Amino acid sequence: MIDLRSDTVTKPTKMMRQAAFDAIVGDDVYNEDPTILELEELSASMLGKEAAMFVPSGTQGNQVAVLTHCVSGQEVILEANSHIYFYEGGTISAFAGVQPRTIKGIRGEMSPDEVEAAIRVDDIHQPETGLICLENTHNRAGGAIVPLANMKEIYQRVQNRNIPIHLDGARLFNAAVATGISVKKYARYTDTVQFCLSKGLGAPVGSIIAGTQEFIMKARKWRKRLGGGLRQAGIIAAPGLVALKTMVDRLAEDHEKANKLATGLSAIRGLSIENKVDTNIVLVNTEQSGLNANQFIEILKREEILAVAFGPNTVRFTTHYDVTEHEISNVIEKIAKNLL
Amino acid sequence: MIDLRSDTVTKPTKMMRQAAFDAIVGDDVYNEDPTILELEELSASMLGKEAAMFVPSGTQGNQVAVLTHCVSGQEVILEANSHIYFYEGGTISAFAGVQPRTIKGIRGEMSPDEVEAAIRVDDIHQPETGLICLENTHNRAGGAIVPLANMKEIYQRVQNRNIPIHLDGARLFNAAVATGISVKKYARYTDTVQFCLSKGLGAPVGSIIAGTQEFIMKARKWRKRLGGGLRQAGIIAAPGLVALKTMVDRLAEDHEKANKLATGLSAIRGLSIENKVDTNIVLVNTEQSGLNANQFIEILKREEILAVAFGPNTVRFTTHYDVTEHEISNVIEKIAKNLL
Amino acid sequence: MIDLRSDTVTKPTKMMRQAAFDAIVGDDVYNEDPTILELEELSASMLGKEAAMFVPSGTQGNQVAVLTHCVSGQEVILEANSHIYFYEGGTISAFAGVQPRTIKGIRGEMSPDEVEAAIRVDDIHQPETGLICLENTHNRAGGAIVPLANMKEIYQRVQNRNIPIHLDGARLFNAAVATGISVKKYARYTDTVQFCLSKGLGAPVGSIIAGTQEFIMKARKWRKRLGGGLRQAGIIAAPGLVALKTMVDRLAEDHEKANKLATGLSAIRGLSIENKVDTNIVLVNTEQSGLNANQFIEILKREEILAVAFGPNTVRFTTHYDVTEHEISNVIEKIAKNLL
Amino acid sequence: MIDLRSDTVTKPTKMMRQAAFDAIVGDDVYNEDPTILELEELSASMLGKEAAMFVPSGTQGNQVAVLTHCVSGQEVILEANSHIYFYEGGTISAFAGVQPRTIKGIRGEMSPDEVEAAIRVDDIHQPETGLICLENTHNRAGGAIVPLANMKEIYQRVQNRNIPIHLDGARLFNAAVATGISVKKYARYTDTVQFCLSKGLGAPVGSIIAGTQEFIMKARKWRKRLGGGLRQAGIIAAPGLVALKTMVDRLAEDHEKANKLATGLSAIRGLSIENKVDTNIVLVNTEQSGLNANQFIEILKREEILAVAFGPNTVRFTTHYDVTEHEISNVIEKIAKNLL
Repeated sequence: MIDLRSDTVTKPTKMMRQAAFDAIVGDDVYNEDPTILELEELSASMLGKEAAMFVPSGTQGNQVAVLTHCVSGQEVILEANSHIYFYEGGTISAFAGVQPRTIKGIRGEMSPDEVEAAIRVDDIHQPETGLICLENTHNRAGGAIVPLANMKEIYQRVQNRNIPIHLDGARLFNAAVATGISVKKYARYTDTVQFCLSKGLGAPVGSIIAGTQEFIMKARKWRKRLGGGLRQAGIIAAPGLVALKTMVDRLAEDHEKANKLATGLSAIRGLSIENKVDTNIVLVNTEQSGLNANQFIEILKREEILAVAFGPNTVRFTTHYDVTEHEISNVIEKIAKNLL
Repeated sequence: MIDLRSDTVTKPTKMMRQAAFDAIVGDDVYNEDPTILELEELSASMLGKEAAMFVPSGTQGNQVAVLTHCVSGQEVILEANSHIYFYEGGTISAFAGVQPRTIKGIRGEMSPDEVEAAIRVDDIHQPETGLICLENTHNRAGGAIVPLANMKEIYQRVQNRNIPIHLDGARLFNAAVATGISVKKYARYTDTVQFCLSKGLGAPVGSIIAGTQEFIMKARKWRKRLGGGLRQAGIIAAPGLVALKTMVDRLAEDHEKANKLATGLSAIRGLSIENKVDTNIVLVNTEQSGLNANQFIEILKREEILAVAFGPNTVRFTTHYDVTEHEISNVIEKIAKNLL
Repeated sequence: MIDLRSDTVTKPTKMMRQAAFDAIVGDDVYNEDPTILELEELSASMLGKEAAMFVPSGTQGNQVAVLTHCVSGQEVILEANSHIYFYEGGTISAFAGVQPRTIKGIRGEMSPDEVEAAIRVDDIHQPETGLICLENTHNRAGGAIVPLANMKEIYQRVQNRNIPIHLDGARLFNAAVATGISVKKYARYTDTVQFCLSKGLGAPVGSIIAGTQEFIMKARKWRKRLGGGLRQAGIIAAPGLVALKTMVDRLAEDHEKANKLATGLSAIRGLSIENKVDTNIVLVNTEQSGLNANQFIEILKREEILAVAFGPNTVRFTTHYDVTEHEISNVIEKIAKNLL
Repeated sequence: MIDLRSDTVTKPTKMMRQAAFDAIVGDDVYNEDPTILELEELSASMLGKEAAMFVPSGTQGNQVAVLTHCVSGQEVILEANSHIYFYEGGTISAFAGVQPRTIKGIRGEMSPDEVEAAIRVDDIHQPETGLICLENTHNRAGGAIVPLANMKEIYQRVQNRNIPIHLDGARLFNAAVATGISVKKYARYTDTVQFCLSKGLGAPVGSIIAGTQEFIMKARKWRKRLGGGLRQAGIIAAPGLVALKTMVDRLAEDHEKANKLATGLSAIRGLSIENKVDTNIVLVNTEQSGLNANQFIEILKREEILAVAFGPNTVRFTTHYDVTEHEISNVIEKIAKNLL
């Protein structure tokens, strides 16, 4: 099987497994796991934030952020196709009791004017705006990079308003590698950041949430409530450290593979590419082929290729460490053959 | 003062006060207030529903509906400018724990295609769609009437999907009077309906929520939790009965007054009317006058006229029982004089 | 029917009805109903608090208090049989997201030592204590008066801890009339107070919540979310004013009637009185009569007497304005006759 | 340091590390991690349940159970010192919106009569009872074993009432090993069970929640919402499998060590043992020594011994795999020396 469903399917490298085997561990509920502490310090320093905290998933990192920043009855401004809104089970409403206020972005980018206009006024009928969430790279926009200038503009507009900004940076390292802008620079325009160790970086499990000391202190209790207080978590932090130390730069290869895939597929009659391929995601439109997304995926399966439906006629391919350039060529060939 | 801020400012008529004075009452928490029972029966029968329940406000009626139809973690589809989403303090998320999924309508009307596309698929990442909410007439769309055909179409699309529909009909009687289509006909395409006794119908306090017997039985407990279980509520149900029996047809006069106001104001240089005036609401755009909404409202105040800001350059005027045709003429004259 | 189920069944007096008829009203969502404003000012001044707010029910007053004082994830200390915990549908957990920490009181009185011991320490596993709730008089303890000294002691213990105290004083006036201690004195040892206009005071609808200006300002938004923002609420505030002005002192008569009833029933073989009758509630134990509570209530019904089950073998009788001394005698006679 | 704070501090064995190194993994969000699947199947079969699911912590397992069994507005009956109520941050109220109804147990055992009496009746003022939670062994009762007969009795009492039972069996294997009654037998009297791999069983991370297929299917979505949907989780499931296969029987040694510790400490003047030591927990009362819990813990620290405060004068010691018989002797000696 050539698995292009997501970069989350990446298997841990040998070096990661060895790191797990060797990890010095302690009880992280007592804040005593040295490997977790090292990972949290390294992450905070890479992001230029005071403190960081390991969480078992990106979803938990985002939920901790919303729970820590907000109180029930507030409103959160976010992009209409953002992961937090679209793919986290309605949890910000279910657990944090906040109402999402969605803005349709272009390639994941929200208009600063629209963000500002969406901030609520002081009125007994209206919720208070408690948080703004960004996503970079933006998953449903096809791994699109939200420009630093956009993040900066939004940040500056809300500076005096006492509304925090959270960045869902599950794939922030993809943006950084593609643009040459450091994650630290991106993080400058957001109060808190979440990034995943388990996607393109290839670690088996886990994400990081970073912010001020005070934020992380409060966040630890919400993580506990969510069931993310782990014990000898060094076993999974150790591969995470390997990911941060050895897997960042190679994300460029994933982006090249995605570009190659997009170029190849766009040449096939009936298929077109929906997104500008900034990073490691390719959105293929199948409409002209006479196949809908699910039918196309079935054909792929027969060819031992896996991808996911992203809309009625949209299929997402995601490149990653475990898929080779050669396999990308194979995928193109096999699809071409089937759509002749 | 000529108060055009809202039809909610309508004062109870003498007949309503007399009805309050004479009301036969009991303890409604025990379901024993005869006047409440009469009002609930009349309301249910007018709407063609099995049962109805009195609530102290339209907001409570809508919240009871969401709480009764949904469970935490679900998603509710509604119009992006609907009252439930825009003006109820984010409460469906805070109390019911549901996530709103907003669709931008045209004159309050959501595209059935977009509604259908917004229904979630069975996926571990996604909330389940638990409810669809409509609003008719639509307040922020300027009292726009949502066509019966649109309601019917949405209703038919979700028939087999086990997703209920709730209608925020705070001003449903305005729609009915303006179109000649009975409230019962409108209610046919929605599982539950809320309408207000206290807006154009002029009752001092209260709204009705109607649906099946089973729904209302469950709803009673949610009303109690919201603090809407009242005692000798017949005192306010009695004026509500007067409202239903004597004030419905006269809503046509409010619509005429609104039309007259719109015609008058549209002739004034610098002002334009944003909405097609279907019922009793006029949205005036002040941009060309060089005044923003708040400045315009200040000028009105000096002339002893009250209206409300509805956007940076939008002012809402609402006509009602307590404002006369003559006063409407005065309003037009005074504004014209000021904007010369 | 002689209705002794609750003092909530009291019907409004003629003077109250006249006040409703004559009430000067406005739109209370705009804070412009003069009668509401008068009632809120009078209430605040009687309680010695900065501000007060009308709510349609005692439950809503209590819920507004919890929502305004607390945030989700906190814990609230209250008596194990208190109304907020026992009779409000689990709403403090459902809406405010707080966990109750119950303490079994003696006659409604919680041990200050136990209250203090229940306050949580700073620990990642534990919720923070966000509020302490008292109830006076205590309904399930049979209308028991919680001594001022107990309230003072609890208040002093938590003074430096930044934990507010709320008093569910649904029947606080009963305590005040019975002890001669003013409601203002009771209110001194609690940050916020709720009392009901619609129980012994006989108003048809409504309660008051009082506290600081800042508290009431925040509370208004929570009341709106709960659907308690009413329009021409002066119609029900006017009877409330009559209640406060004319019905307080006469609560003493209710207490006498309760005493008479208790004395009479205790003389009947098979019945015993469970509570020391401080105010207007009598808890009758039926066990020795061979009847359980429901069977006893059925017999009462046949005699056109109404009361409520309060436990498997406990029946509550509540005296009020609409039941006469003579009727109390009748009740005793009829029961005696039946249990011969 | 001799660390007796908790059995959660146990470090993974070499065999567990090797298993992590060798683990065959997949993406568990897609249900494709073979090691997770093996662990879930083995767990379900050991418990005699249809299905099981891995969760990163016992807290998450318990929260998933409450969220899956209940809806907002319900009440959950549990022991007043149970972990779910006492040590999970008030989360069942914050997230599931349910109100706890606590019963004081004896050695963790709730009276079936009291449980039955706590079940709510059908009444508009009352929440519905949605779940009963048990805990075995009971942590705050000092690792007390709740007798099978008690669990069976409670189970039988609620059989016809449609109220599910959840068992917090974080240390259920300790009960099983101590009594010789299989975990399957215990699980027979509860609809769902949670047990921890990371306490006495020594795995670095994780717990299991088990129940019917339908329950687990629903639970997967709540786990995702809580942020417990992991990727190549086989890395931590593999040590979990080793724990289940090699570490169960040896729990008996922990119990012996605890007994030895209790015997030794009880002979020291000023100390007494508060609990009957059923399993691996010893609760030491320090009151007669003139030291409170915190002072006693400070002395221990100087001697390089760690324990935790469990009350003002109560200190908890927990034995586990990483503390030897010899170290237990040392602990006794050192404490004896200090309290002379």
